[in-house]
Amino acid sequence: MSPLLELGLSLPRRGSRRRLRSLYEQLRAAILGGRLHPGLRLPSSRALAADYGVSRATVVATYERLLGEGYLIARSGAGTFVAHGLPAHAAPARVPARMPAASGSDPRLTAAWREAGDAPPPAVRRARYDFRIGVPDAEAFPTDLWRRLLGRAVREAGAAGGDDASPQGSPALRAGIASHVSFTRAVACRAEDVIVTAGAQQAFNLLAQVLVTPGRTPVAVEDPGYPPLHAVLRAAGARLAPVPVDAAGLIVERIPRAARVICVTPSHQFPLGTAMSLERRTALLELARARGAVIIEDDYDSEFRFGGRPLDALQTLDTGGTVLYVGTFSKSLTPALRTGFIVAPPWARAALTAAKRLHDGHQPTVLQDALALLIGEGHLARHVRRMRRLYERRRRLLLELLARDFAGLLEPVQSVAGLHVSAWLRSAGDAGALLTRARALDVGIQSLDGFYLGTRRRPGLIFGYGAIGERELAAGLARLRTLWPT
Amino acid sequence: MSPLLELGLSLPRRGSRRRLRSLYEQLRAAILGGRLHPGLRLPSSRALAADYGVSRATVVATYERLLGEGYLIARSGAGTFVAHGLPAHAAPARVPARMPAASGSDPRLTAAWREAGDAPPPAVRRARYDFRIGVPDAEAFPTDLWRRLLGRAVREAGAAGGDDASPQGSPALRAGIASHVSFTRAVACRAEDVIVTAGAQQAFNLLAQVLVTPGRTPVAVEDPGYPPLHAVLRAAGARLAPVPVDAAGLIVERIPRAARVICVTPSHQFPLGTAMSLERRTALLELARARGAVIIEDDYDSEFRFGGRPLDALQTLDTGGTVLYVGTFSKSLTPALRTGFIVAPPWARAALTAAKRLHDGHQPTVLQDALALLIGEGHLARHVRRMRRLYERRRRLLLELLARDFAGLLEPVQSVAGLHVSAWLRSAGDAGALLTRARALDVGIQSLDGFYLGTRRRPGLIFGYGAIGERELAAGLARLRTLWPT
Repeated sequence: MSPLLELGLSLPRRGSRRRLRSLYEQLRAAILGGRLHPGLRLPSSRALAADYGVSRATVVATYERLLGEGYLIARSGAGTFVAHGLPAHAAPARVPARMPAASGSDPRLTAAWREAGDAPPPAVRRARYDFRIGVPDAEAFPTDLWRRLLGRAVREAGAAGGDDASPQGSPALRAGIASHVSFTRAVACRAEDVIVTAGAQQAFNLLAQVLVTPGRTPVAVEDPGYPPLHAVLRAAGARLAPVPVDAAGLIVERIPRAARVICVTPSHQFPLGTAMSLERRTALLELARARGAVIIEDDYDSEFRFGGRPLDALQTLDTGGTVLYVGTFSKSLTPALRTGFIVAPPWARAALTAAKRLHDGHQPTVLQDALALLIGEGHLARHVRRMRRLYERRRRLLLELLARDFAGLLEPVQSVAGLHVSAWLRSAGDAGALLTRARALDVGIQSLDGFYLGTRRRPGLIFGYGAIGERELAAGLARLRTLWPT
Repeated sequence: MSPLLELGLSLPRRGSRRRLRSLYEQLRAAILGGRLHPGLRLPSSRALAADYGVSRATVVATYERLLGEGYLIARSGAGTFVAHGLPAHAAPARVPARMPAASGSDPRLTAAWREAGDAPPPAVRRARYDFRIGVPDAEAFPTDLWRRLLGRAVREAGAAGGDDASPQGSPALRAGIASHVSFTRAVACRAEDVIVTAGAQQAFNLLAQVLVTPGRTPVAVEDPGYPPLHAVLRAAGARLAPVPVDAAGLIVERIPRAARVICVTPSHQFPLGTAMSLERRTALLELARARGAVIIEDDYDSEFRFGGRPLDALQTLDTGGTVLYVGTFSKSLTPALRTGFIVAPPWARAALTAAKRLHDGHQPTVLQDALALLIGEGHLARHVRRMRRLYERRRRLLLELLARDFAGLLEPVQSVAGLHVSAWLRSAGDAGALLTRARALDVGIQSLDGFYLGTRRRPGLIFGYGAIGERELAAGLARLRTLWPT
């Protein structure tokens, strides 16, 4: 049974003179009916002949005729395709006709998703001077090494089928992650404490799944904070309780008494960039312990740490199993990998593993295996060291230029880590209008506005330096500066 | 700032004689304190010296001393590791001490997840004669080709960072999937109709997310059916309505009037294997249209179709945009890829894309790119053809042997597709006890029992032939036969 036979074509018995004509007519009907749609590549004449039990000459003749009539087009070396721009009566109207137009408020969607049901956001053209946040330098990614490791991973896995893969993650990768966070973040953990996830975003989703009872669980989040985290918590039915942030991080005494889950970015507050003070860290752990609450510690970019002895992660300070530590390789390697992890205390581990199994089974094994090699052979540590030097130069340049050229205009927020620096606007201007004017100069920056949940917003800008070289960084700031009087 | 410095070590000023001793003492303390745990690989002396600003001789001397004292061990060619079996006072007790024991009923987990919070299921040793279901032949996977395509995908993507990747899936892969399902399943769709997911399981999860209002939406499912689908629907708060299945598939008139979502496997009912009749298909589409319900069509293994003209997919017959078609590459390639897809009508597409973004961003780009090459260059179609011949031989042998040796004992269920055959037990025996005895003979089979939701269960067995060669298949059946009197 061949793919084309499954399209419902059925030919006269072998040897009949009508086979050629029948093949032609049925292919043509499938094209006219829209089943074989414009741009579709047809199988080679050899493959079709073999599958279909006809001579190759029959297929070649059929293709030739359809080519001659304009139903097919041949692209040299690429194959034979269903033509675009067929005459009106031949247009494959079937798909559009039977597909009702998109509607953002279709009643078949749940209420929460009707808004999202509108057209997807338009693709963003990147600005030439691109201060976007949350991404590492793509050109520095070790492409050749990664290609070799993927190749080794495929070879070494051999015929492993994947159905035996653990939802928790491969033992080798979990050991690698435990070693990595031990070194870079002093997070004390072992392979068995680690759950491998599809990026930090899935980590948040799995945590929401096992910790949030829909409509019932109050969850404290930083304000300003990370909108994709808020979105996934809301989708899980959490009641969000925004808690303000100051120069020492999350203001612990403002956490509502009812909060059962507390989400925090202590190393490099997102988006402000401040580090949480040791006093606050200790107070937060004590508060969580006393109230039976849990802490989700999002340590998204703190491998990149500049100067000063770092403050320990909450996970490192925790003695009560209250911290669920979330890390990601999106900043230290690339977001294209979609790999993150949770370091979980024993009471949460089996539930999180079961949730991972329920959501998508496990991470693709070849990526796990290649990443385990990357970590285990020391490549990741070397790459992080190299990138830290790169980012440190950019960061220093950024802070120098902000101090020199924007002294009365912007006030950088103190930080010691990460891939972005925030800066308050000194005058109560309209950050939104500023960004629009910057964009007109091909300078891409974000304002802090979109990261607030409450109403009290202090206007400010966020300068990411993960994706911008030193030359563009300086040129972009010079352009930005022209938006103010000299 | 180096990884080790981030562990909190701080050395006396450069040139001091105390640097050597200080490095030793701080590393030793980190090992004794459990922060550097047994089995952890230390950085090379060269890397540590460079990071730490000390001479390499200092690091080598420090490592030598710790090696001599038994804190470290060196493995030739592999590096230097923290030793196992340290003296009792030196054991890294910190992790176990601060991690409370696992508990399946920790009140911090939501009620639904406390059960799952028990220890994960033990690893299953595969039987020698392994009739497990739902997996393709792992050894037939085109490993070399896949390795080459991954390499090309990495090279061609170059410095693509991944943060621009569409949650819906790469255009090239969506075009490839549209072409693939057009040929193999006569599903009429275009690239824009496809959403790429982390396997069929995530497809179900995303569909549950956008279609199910927790506690409110009744969802009809086949009984017997697919437990992971039931689990993900329950986790989303669906009220499951089991609908019985007979030799013509889902019994459409038994679908409760309130059902707003109807899940069905029309090509190859899971687990029975029957095909849904054309009458039932038409009736189901009409019922869904009339009631404003949607249909989730799970077409999990119907690329493998044996004999007879196939019945069209529900998606192919649908003219009202009521069908959400779910496919997977877990059967046609390997479950290790974790790649599936939804073909969605326009009203659901943006919501599903937004849900995918919320859940984990997008599929890893390198896998999408390599799979797009695999499909676009015709490798997948060839592989499916080759595998169809392989599975057809196994299936024929299985049915022959069941007819010859189990005539009075088992009654195979009619089917025309897929990677397994179910068979009713002719006598009302205890299928569970039978499986235990089979397992003692190293024959791995499942019974139908675990796939029922209601109480009416007809005992039967399921013979998967995806993962078993013809020789083992015959030998396994011969062993199984010994469990009945001759």
